[in-house]
Amino acid sequence: MKYSSIPTAQSIVQHCRAKNISNIVISPGSRNAPLTISFTEDPFFTCFSVVDERCAGFFALGMAQQLKQPVVVLCTSGSALLNYYPAVAEAFYSTIPLVVISADRPYYKVGIGDGQTIHQKNIYANQIGYSANLKQDVSHSSEVIKQYAPSWISDNHIERSQSKVQHYNDVELNNALTFALNELCPVHINVPFEEPLYQTQLQPSISANIPDLAEPKTNTPTLDNKRKIWNSTAKKMVLVGVSAPSTLNEAMINALANDPSVIVFTETTSNLNHPNFFNSIDSIIAPIEMGEHPQEGFSKLQPEILVTFGGLIVSKKIKAFLRKYKPKHHWHVGSINANNTFFCLEEHIKVSVDYFFQEMYTDIKASGSSYFTEWHMVKENYKLKRATYLAQIPISDFYAFNSILNAIPKGYLLQLANSSTIRYTQLFEIDASINVNCNRGTSGIDGSTSTAIGASVVNANPTLFITGDLSFFYDSNALWNNYIKDNFRIIVINNQGGGIFRILPGQKESESFKTFFETRHNLSAKHLCKMFNIEHNKANSKDSLNEMMPRFFSESDRPKLLEIETPALINDKILIDYFRFIS
Amino acid sequence: MKYSSIPTAQSIVQHCRAKNISNIVISPGSRNAPLTISFTEDPFFTCFSVVDERCAGFFALGMAQQLKQPVVVLCTSGSALLNYYPAVAEAFYSTIPLVVISADRPYYKVGIGDGQTIHQKNIYANQIGYSANLKQDVSHSSEVIKQYAPSWISDNHIERSQSKVQHYNDVELNNALTFALNELCPVHINVPFEEPLYQTQLQPSISANIPDLAEPKTNTPTLDNKRKIWNSTAKKMVLVGVSAPSTLNEAMINALANDPSVIVFTETTSNLNHPNFFNSIDSIIAPIEMGEHPQEGFSKLQPEILVTFGGLIVSKKIKAFLRKYKPKHHWHVGSINANNTFFCLEEHIKVSVDYFFQEMYTDIKASGSSYFTEWHMVKENYKLKRATYLAQIPISDFYAFNSILNAIPKGYLLQLANSSTIRYTQLFEIDASINVNCNRGTSGIDGSTSTAIGASVVNANPTLFITGDLSFFYDSNALWNNYIKDNFRIIVINNQGGGIFRILPGQKESESFKTFFETRHNLSAKHLCKMFNIEHNKANSKDSLNEMMPRFFSESDRPKLLEIETPALINDKILIDYFRFIS
Repeated sequence: MKYSSIPTAQSIVQHCRAKNISNIVISPGSRNAPLTISFTEDPFFTCFSVVDERCAGFFALGMAQQLKQPVVVLCTSGSALLNYYPAVAEAFYSTIPLVVISADRPYYKVGIGDGQTIHQKNIYANQIGYSANLKQDVSHSSEVIKQYAPSWISDNHIERSQSKVQHYNDVELNNALTFALNELCPVHINVPFEEPLYQTQLQPSISANIPDLAEPKTNTPTLDNKRKIWNSTAKKMVLVGVSAPSTLNEAMINALANDPSVIVFTETTSNLNHPNFFNSIDSIIAPIEMGEHPQEGFSKLQPEILVTFGGLIVSKKIKAFLRKYKPKHHWHVGSINANNTFFCLEEHIKVSVDYFFQEMYTDIKASGSSYFTEWHMVKENYKLKRATYLAQIPISDFYAFNSILNAIPKGYLLQLANSSTIRYTQLFEIDASINVNCNRGTSGIDGSTSTAIGASVVNANPTLFITGDLSFFYDSNALWNNYIKDNFRIIVINNQGGGIFRILPGQKESESFKTFFETRHNLSAKHLCKMFNIEHNKANSKDSLNEMMPRFFSESDRPKLLEIETPALINDKILIDYFRFIS
Repeated sequence: MKYSSIPTAQSIVQHCRAKNISNIVISPGSRNAPLTISFTEDPFFTCFSVVDERCAGFFALGMAQQLKQPVVVLCTSGSALLNYYPAVAEAFYSTIPLVVISADRPYYKVGIGDGQTIHQKNIYANQIGYSANLKQDVSHSSEVIKQYAPSWISDNHIERSQSKVQHYNDVELNNALTFALNELCPVHINVPFEEPLYQTQLQPSISANIPDLAEPKTNTPTLDNKRKIWNSTAKKMVLVGVSAPSTLNEAMINALANDPSVIVFTETTSNLNHPNFFNSIDSIIAPIEMGEHPQEGFSKLQPEILVTFGGLIVSKKIKAFLRKYKPKHHWHVGSINANNTFFCLEEHIKVSVDYFFQEMYTDIKASGSSYFTEWHMVKENYKLKRATYLAQIPISDFYAFNSILNAIPKGYLLQLANSSTIRYTQLFEIDASINVNCNRGTSGIDGSTSTAIGASVVNANPTLFITGDLSFFYDSNALWNNYIKDNFRIIVINNQGGGIFRILPGQKESESFKTFFETRHNLSAKHLCKMFNIEHNKANSKDSLNEMMPRFFSESDRPKLLEIETPALINDKILIDYFRFIS
């Protein structure tokens, strides 16, 4: 095995090994060569090569999303690491442990007009868990600095003892990686390298000092006071944000599902299923909004206790509702951060979700509440009406999503793009065997395809990725990736522009609307499919769509893409009419 | 004409008008709707729609590069503005006045788990001229805040007087735009908007308070001391960084060209031409490096005075040389910032370049120096040898660049990608009528195509853009652009990967090298050409290349791309052999 001759490169690799961080996504460059060599030479690591750093960042994010373990992205100096920023921000708000390692120029060459050199230290300050700005090895560069920039040394900018450098870097590396592991948060490690960059040796010259990871403490406070309130309250709403499958155990799911004083609002991204749960929040709320007596409806729905867990909430309607009709108590449960999304957060209860509900249900009191029953009837009603409505509408986004979601084979990994895709999906049921994911941290359209590909690489199940046309073309470089599996499936709902803008208020018939809001185009995915050797399929009618479905999911020796053409001009009307129809 | 009903939106538009900033590049979104409406409704502004913000940023940068005037990029909230960062950094180090306007959520909704919301304030802190974080209009949102987040008001987070808000925003807007205009620096304006976002009115409700722009002071200090040193020095080197055409007047060019004690080192990006100037720095320095007595050669070349002007320097060899063989005096001339690139900057002389040289040459003394003559002979020698060498080599990057650069019709705008492209171009002469540009601020491969397209849009001349395959595919979304002119020409030198890595040290035959450094691929540009309706041409031999050239530059009713295939495995050898051949 070969090792970079640069001590800090050896140290970084040793820290990653010690923390069992083994997946490394590398973008090409020269400044990061010491680390590229170190990671790729060590069989402990699985390395991936992705050229476009924006895609590389999201690709790594997708892997970390599924693994729930840190994944490293590694790049060269200069603007390369700026292209990671969209993925870093997504990781930050989605609590995903993305570890960015950026090679930097020696610090004395920053700000003096050297090539491919920017101010990299703390670059992600606004949305990062920890920024480790490593020091430069002395042994390696002191001679160069003495010759080139002696003032740098005399100004005491630079550490003159290699053992101090190594100690500092060990502490910082340990801090950063521990933070990523414990807080599920992105971290940034910036590391300056002096030339020569490509030298190797057969044995490491240093041994990093790495403290053992402390066992995370389990928090099990007594929740008697909360239970008292819980038991004495007739209207309790549980609202579940983005969560991995199996966040809540079976017993607790049943306890909640059978409590007449509880309604559980889940989202597509909650990965939590029970026939008694309410999985299409907007189908409940939109009819109230549109009804003749919205205040009355909302007052009926208003909970006294709101318990939230998981990550961010997709539905705008539930946010607007709960901000206006605030619960008496809002408790957020979970060990990671709590958001005061409804401006009435009373307490962040830092225990596991299972523990919390076990505590609530140790001493069940029969409740005379009709809270669940009332809304359950509303739900059964809209489900019937939805079926009727679906039978009578033409091909459209709404129709397509229903057909697709019904056709996904059991056990699939489902990845969703943002904007219309996630919002339409929220209107339908999805089989409980399907693991659903969407980048809801920043809700960007910038890296959904890359994320989906990254997730698929570390998931044994086949993957379906659904996206709109704008998100798809935005992240087209995602397909420039040598790791796309044959069982990867993409569905592009192509309505020739940003269909969501037709749903929003504003004037829709002007040229200006088409150009600057909807950004109308007539692109097709077929050329990209040819370029990247993906099977291209098309559907533009109800028949062709429904016929296509089983064939599309069948096994194949290369990935497949299905482009569904829907009519830009009527999609918004069909959606709004749906809400009217079920009202 | 229609105006957004939001006062700050009106104000921003009025400030831009007052500063004569008329080009606005808009990416679609809802949060920025008040500004999209305001800019597109006002015929004073020329608006462009580009979906991918990374491309939009570089597209605007290219426009500003040519116009030397601020250009606005406008985006919605969330990760959108992170995608501008590569272009912002390029603008920062290339002194280009890019004005980023990002719509933000109301500040009380930041950090509470709202969708498409990140911490946007001061996001570009590491490389930005000015960050204006505007305040939120009171009239528009106080009711909403009172209802949703009363604590926000009681915490005094929020300004309660609309006139104070307007005053604050006027000052900040004026500061930001003035900074962009005077310092040629990117600036960021972050502006929170409360819903409703789409309301308009027929008359503006506010009138922004905009102070007149102060006349920039002309600095004309006496430079007698400098002239004394200048006149008494036998070895003076003038090194020209990135500059626009006509930076130096004819008289001064001639004075320098005919001074036997002066050698003028220019780069492709200097846009400064005279037969007596030295335009291929590496062809001078590489033979010394490779020669038998490098120290002797370098000592001969070592100047006593180094005068630099313009932006960043491309040649790594001149940097390494001047850092080791430091001049006694390094003066940087020009009103914008000076870099201490060689760690020996004595003074930043803040006058115009013309003024400086006029001062030096008011009192010319005959000089017995042979500095120019000696190196001129070296130059004439390598030019002859280069011609011989070109006649005997096969199709390759080196060969292709010579053919292309000889074939470009007079008056073209030439845009170059980074990495190999700019480095090869530096080895050849380019006709003085050609304006040459390259993103040398960060030297990234991330936005060269977009920059070239932006530049072409505001330049009356036809444009040729030369790029390597990695840069081209990296920025493939650049072609998703409705403003590409029919006379736009792209040449992709496709050597199936990052050819530059073969020139750098390191092991080249392993699979790991091919995957993680060279990132070998077998992609062609032809599918993208089909997708975006660009004529695709191919050359893979000396004959087909030379035959293609005149036809490629002929008029056409759509843009053209020429893909030149060169052999990955021999390009590096041919380049290194060139330096040996001329030694």
